[in-house]
Amino acid sequence: MAEMNRQITLAARPKGMPKPTDFKLVEAPMPEIGGGEVLVKTLFMSVDPYMRGRMNEGRSYARGVDIGEVMMGGTVGEVIESTDHTLQPGDIVQSQMGWQAYGKAIGSEVRKIDPDLAPISTSLGVLGMPGLTAYFGLLDVAKPQKDETVVVSGGAGAVGSLVGQIAKVKGCRAVGIAGSSEKVAYMVDELGFDGAFNYKQVSDYGSELKRQCPDGIDVYFDNVGGEISDTIFPQMNVFGRISVCGQISQYNLDLPDPAPRIMWHFIAQRLMMRGFLVFDFAEHFGKALKEMAGWVQSDKLKYREDIWDGLENAPEAFIDMLQGGNVGKRLIKVS
Amino acid sequence: MAEMNRQITLAARPKGMPKPTDFKLVEAPMPEIGGGEVLVKTLFMSVDPYMRGRMNEGRSYARGVDIGEVMMGGTVGEVIESTDHTLQPGDIVQSQMGWQAYGKAIGSEVRKIDPDLAPISTSLGVLGMPGLTAYFGLLDVAKPQKDETVVVSGGAGAVGSLVGQIAKVKGCRAVGIAGSSEKVAYMVDELGFDGAFNYKQVSDYGSELKRQCPDGIDVYFDNVGGEISDTIFPQMNVFGRISVCGQISQYNLDLPDPAPRIMWHFIAQRLMMRGFLVFDFAEHFGKALKEMAGWVQSDKLKYREDIWDGLENAPEAFIDMLQGGNVGKRLIKVS
Repeated sequence: MAEMNRQITLAARPKGMPKPTDFKLVEAPMPEIGGGEVLVKTLFMSVDPYMRGRMNEGRSYARGVDIGEVMMGGTVGEVIESTDHTLQPGDIVQSQMGWQAYGKAIGSEVRKIDPDLAPISTSLGVLGMPGLTAYFGLLDVAKPQKDETVVVSGGAGAVGSLVGQIAKVKGCRAVGIAGSSEKVAYMVDELGFDGAFNYKQVSDYGSELKRQCPDGIDVYFDNVGGEISDTIFPQMNVFGRISVCGQISQYNLDLPDPAPRIMWHFIAQRLMMRGFLVFDFAEHFGKALKEMAGWVQSDKLKYREDIWDGLENAPEAFIDMLQGGNVGKRLIKVS
Repeated sequence: MAEMNRQITLAARPKGMPKPTDFKLVEAPMPEIGGGEVLVKTLFMSVDPYMRGRMNEGRSYARGVDIGEVMMGGTVGEVIESTDHTLQPGDIVQSQMGWQAYGKAIGSEVRKIDPDLAPISTSLGVLGMPGLTAYFGLLDVAKPQKDETVVVSGGAGAVGSLVGQIAKVKGCRAVGIAGSSEKVAYMVDELGFDGAFNYKQVSDYGSELKRQCPDGIDVYFDNVGGEISDTIFPQMNVFGRISVCGQISQYNLDLPDPAPRIMWHFIAQRLMMRGFLVFDFAEHFGKALKEMAGWVQSDKLKYREDIWDGLENAPEAFIDMLQGGNVGKRLIKVS
């Protein structure tokens, strides 16, 4: 019997927080490659908050996954077969194969990784999409200046943990918000944030922010949204900047959650808020990855990987991450 | 008996929409000038939405007017006495004398007006603070590009009527929103907007916007806020820009008015929103006024003045403007 591929498909559109039964583990024939394509065996696979949006019907910034279709996502793997002359079996490549053990792609759609430079899993984390998201979302969108105060929500996550550290590289004060005391300790003791707090143990976010940001807030990098953001707008300094990266607190709500209007703060404090997708900066990825790799080598950027084993455990790992279970970058070791 | 000054002071802090009894007409001694000062007789006085905020206690971007203090605001008048060698009796100057028949100021705090260039009242409108607000809020904050669609709320007001016309100068499609059919006719027939609607006669703002903006909305210049804005965010095009100038719908609310959260649109459509105060652009006022004067002379910028007679009628004129009674720039002829 020929070897089969294993895939996780979308079984049902979630209502609110996804359930394991919204996913289905299936067997499928091995992909067959055509001219200019590569067959890749997945080694690591990424689970990220943005995937929750792709489980919905209809378009947001990208089309949703169809029912029965393989869940999408970034992967790093080993080339098994190739009809692209630039890629050989044994090469390690980063690509978007989705939640499956094997995938195929056109050669130009994969990025070859040098495994001697850094662990290959980092191509899905600090030296991949989350790292680039932190880099461009902080530096290009929010433009932090030396001695400014940068607050990041989801500060212990794949993106947020890097945002605070890049802020430190730029001479800013970094304050992180997250949902456990372990995460607070990680940000302050291991990553060198100037301050952090566990929003689940603070009754009044506003007072805590005032205490940790005595000079006000110049930059807010928002991964989470919701009530935490509501308390931040009034504390933004004049000419403050808000970089909107994610809204994980909102992705699983059945009903929209009304909020105080924020526009008056934009006038009185002359705030700027901008949302972004990392792909908007694609032409500058090379330069950014080089700079980030330098910071990793000089220990200015630390990262933690939170690796679950087995493709079959991806749904549970994903759901747990949406509930805040991860510290650092959550990955699935597939093979 | 010596001539007396007449002033309108703040008698009480309004709850919600101001009432005539929140103001008081009083007599006061004529101001006496010291070295380097000028005594100015008020000819025209401006009433503007931002003054509502100054009637509240405490600081927003500027301090509030105290109870018993003269209401603040822009004026244009004639120099009566001067100890500043650059200003002579008979000179016409624009300044911030507030709601009174006579005021004094340091010479450097007034701006001399050439009455031969344009009617002096325009120094409070198209060639004054409202004109500069439209100019910088549209061109510097929202950066409209040729063929883009610009929507402006409060489109028949002092600022909005200029925003739509400057958008046309830049080759954009201009669509205005206002609260009467007279205002709609003014925007479309007299000012050359491409479209406009009366939000009081439209049950579904969203559908009307879709009809009038078939290519989506690239720039939203917001003078009003509230439910109109709520329907605009979902219709903003990718990389759209929102310039937040005013929130007149919110100034008289007793209780904050909760709204749908808007951040997801900022991510999916990569929107940018920025609030501003015209004074942030003060170093570029001269260049802007010169360009605006050129557009007025070549009939690219039309304006309408909505002049009420008599200082004693200022409170009523102001309250009526907050309720949307004005078409174009509301002024008070004081002398």
